[in-house]
Amino acid sequence: MTEHPTNDLNDVVHQRHRLGILTIAAESKRVEFGYLKEALELTGGNLSRHITVLNTAGLLDIEKGYEGRRPRTWVSITDAGKRALAAEMAALRALVARHDS
Amino acid sequence: MTEHPTNDLNDVVHQRHRLGILTIAAESKRVEFGYLKEALELTGGNLSRHITVLNTAGLLDIEKGYEGRRPRTWVSITDAGKRALAAEMAALRALVARHDS
Repeated sequence: MTEHPTNDLNDVVHQRHRLGILTIAAESKRVEFGYLKEALELTGGNLSRHITVLNTAGLLDIEKGYEGRRPRTWVSITDAGKRALAAEMAALRALVARHDS
Repeated sequence: MTEHPTNDLNDVVHQRHRLGILTIAAESKRVEFGYLKEALELTGGNLSRHITVLNTAGLLDIEKGYEGRRPRTWVSITDAGKRALAAEMAALRALVARHDS
């Protein structure tokens, strides 16, 4: 039986909020927590949980610091994160192509 | 702020096993349970749970019957299921296009 494209999806990356975090993080050197929160329409708690999952999996780095006197958190995608996102995108491309054919 | 494509994803459809069930169901009139189980590499219990979620959401119909003396379960995608899958595919296409650009 031919391997179905969804069998290649990884839940750590595929979950829609984490997929949002990774795709946005892949677009720049680092992304600020508040920006992600608004872009993905998430609560701070929910975003934190997903960032922790991605960080634990080695896909995202977390950096804490200050912007002026305000505490800030930035995240950046790791090389492993880039590879995992590329694999997810390849599986999604295959899935869409199969659906469209 | 521009709407991010992952905000248009619906967890009922996006979950990878349910996405697999719906895409396979969309390819034919009806699909047998055992076929789905093998194609998606799922246990019977796990497949049953996902089918129940999709059925409860009105996206999948379930039909029970016999093939010879063997009890069989078939599923088929509903019109609402086709619309939900089309919306998911549109969001995935937008996500892949954004990632590739």
